[in-house]
Amino acid sequence: MELISWNNWEEKNNNVNQHIQRYQDIIKSAVEDFVRANPTSALYAPINYMMALKAKRWRPMLLLATAEGYGAKSNEAIDAALAVEVFHNFTLMHDDIMDNAPLRRGQPTVHETWSVNASILSGDAMMVQAFQLLEKSHPTHLPYLLKVFNKTAIEVCEGQQLDMDFEQRTDVTLDEYREMIRLKTSVLLAAAMKMGAICGNADAFQQELAYSFGEHFGLAFQLRDDYLDVFGDPGEFGKQDAGDILADKKTFLYLSALNAQNGAYRDELLKWQGPQNSQQKIEAVRNIFRASSADEATLEEMASHVVSARQALNQMEIGSEIQAFFHQLLEVVQTRTV
Amino acid sequence: MELISWNNWEEKNNNVNQHIQRYQDIIKSAVEDFVRANPTSALYAPINYMMALKAKRWRPMLLLATAEGYGAKSNEAIDAALAVEVFHNFTLMHDDIMDNAPLRRGQPTVHETWSVNASILSGDAMMVQAFQLLEKSHPTHLPYLLKVFNKTAIEVCEGQQLDMDFEQRTDVTLDEYREMIRLKTSVLLAAAMKMGAICGNADAFQQELAYSFGEHFGLAFQLRDDYLDVFGDPGEFGKQDAGDILADKKTFLYLSALNAQNGAYRDELLKWQGPQNSQQKIEAVRNIFRASSADEATLEEMASHVVSARQALNQMEIGSEIQAFFHQLLEVVQTRTV
Repeated sequence: MELISWNNWEEKNNNVNQHIQRYQDIIKSAVEDFVRANPTSALYAPINYMMALKAKRWRPMLLLATAEGYGAKSNEAIDAALAVEVFHNFTLMHDDIMDNAPLRRGQPTVHETWSVNASILSGDAMMVQAFQLLEKSHPTHLPYLLKVFNKTAIEVCEGQQLDMDFEQRTDVTLDEYREMIRLKTSVLLAAAMKMGAICGNADAFQQELAYSFGEHFGLAFQLRDDYLDVFGDPGEFGKQDAGDILADKKTFLYLSALNAQNGAYRDELLKWQGPQNSQQKIEAVRNIFRASSADEATLEEMASHVVSARQALNQMEIGSEIQAFFHQLLEVVQTRTV
Repeated sequence: MELISWNNWEEKNNNVNQHIQRYQDIIKSAVEDFVRANPTSALYAPINYMMALKAKRWRPMLLLATAEGYGAKSNEAIDAALAVEVFHNFTLMHDDIMDNAPLRRGQPTVHETWSVNASILSGDAMMVQAFQLLEKSHPTHLPYLLKVFNKTAIEVCEGQQLDMDFEQRTDVTLDEYREMIRLKTSVLLAAAMKMGAICGNADAFQQELAYSFGEHFGLAFQLRDDYLDVFGDPGEFGKQDAGDILADKKTFLYLSALNAQNGAYRDELLKWQGPQNSQQKIEAVRNIFRASSADEATLEEMASHVVSARQALNQMEIGSEIQAFFHQLLEVVQTRTV
């Protein structure tokens, strides 16, 4: 999941905007301290480069907000929050090698700027640094934080493995896709929420509610992402117009269309596969997505995750202001056009 | 540091042999359990392949022996021991990509058998698995184990970075080489010792002694390794005859010869650089190493680390049988021909 600009939302909603700004300031300052503390040797240059790229910092933000919601101070959760963000950026650094990606957040990737070897090794060091940040947590929280963090880190690797496997396969099911995006994207958001709950001394049941919110939030976000890539305004969305269609990516839209009405659109869809880098292909596939109601199926699936996230959120015993903030974030995910 | 066969030593010394056999059995069983518990998916196949390769298991052995020396039972230290071994094998998996190595422990490397991507991703998962094993440690030990483990893991990355940097440089000093092998090889042996001491509830001073023993033990081992690569019996040593010479590797021997007698052997040594894959090159460089007394300098440096290791060992308040075992291991390192 690549996180995108949300300037519009900020203007639309002042309360969300204020919270976001405050968390981003806290995280920005922590990231700057982290970068400044790193040695000047070659190993750390790619790490600092990666951490300095403009990003929305969803994961540490959710972690901090959850911790505060359960009564912790942000400085009691900032190390765990930064650990999650550093880990996330490590996965991006290694994913970019595996995906042979030239750009990340609009800038040249680490393996393009330095080398594949630098990207492997600095990524490894970065993962260790995530654990070093986690190590600074309060000793009573540490075993619990470490447990959810480890489990999640493995799942993210499993998600990336599935994503790579799917590229070679033509028989990926919708359920397999759901599991892939759950592992690759949403479990880390869920873990960030749970870790925030741990930092706020929430009990096990509350931790699971926080986890559930993050999981459904992440799935909703990813499905909206799939939708916007094809049906969003490319200028507004900030990505290549319908890049997923051009890359024949097996998204929720694609797999829905493939399986719609007993495969009625299958042949037509497969006809457009391959390197036909043209506006014609985009229009044709977009029309298939519409005709097969894959667009509606994606939005419905997204909406169902928003409902599930709200159900969890309503049971979370957190401060009302943070609860309102999370409700608004869900609204934002559901209605965002960028 | 690649660990090599020590059949000879085992025959020479029955006490060492018995201890080694016992620890290897414990570790073998733990590795088998670990491999068996892994899911069958593609992500884990390279991990299981790597862990099943025949290896001497120095690091977990030192950890277990230290823990027992300080009064712990082996099952109280086995998770930490396996964590160190899994981490070590992760570094080998990624190093092999970076070094473009075709073989590891005599078998095709993971990136040759699967792919570079598989090797990156399974390596990442393997590092997380090391932390998952560590996570199983007793909660009172966990913060201390995690701290030394994290610090060491970063240092190992720094060592690999230096090793790669040195390949591009012609002005590497002996001190820089010492620091590189300390980071790349000996700190993980030192950390294994310290982690064993932590598992055995040793105090901070005893932990540092254990660390010091491991650090000097590792340096002595690596220097003997450098020496044997050039002056060992290739059949016995089990590696390519003088592979370091053929690869123009900047070992302690090489850097000693380069700097001996104000650079008297420098031009002659540099003359043999480059891809001259021949017995003539090996003989010529070997003679330079002898004429410049680089061979003696290497053995002296090794001996000084054995002395330092013994000094630490003599202050370690551990059971006398384990202490004798460590003394014998030092003897083995100093005199081994394989």
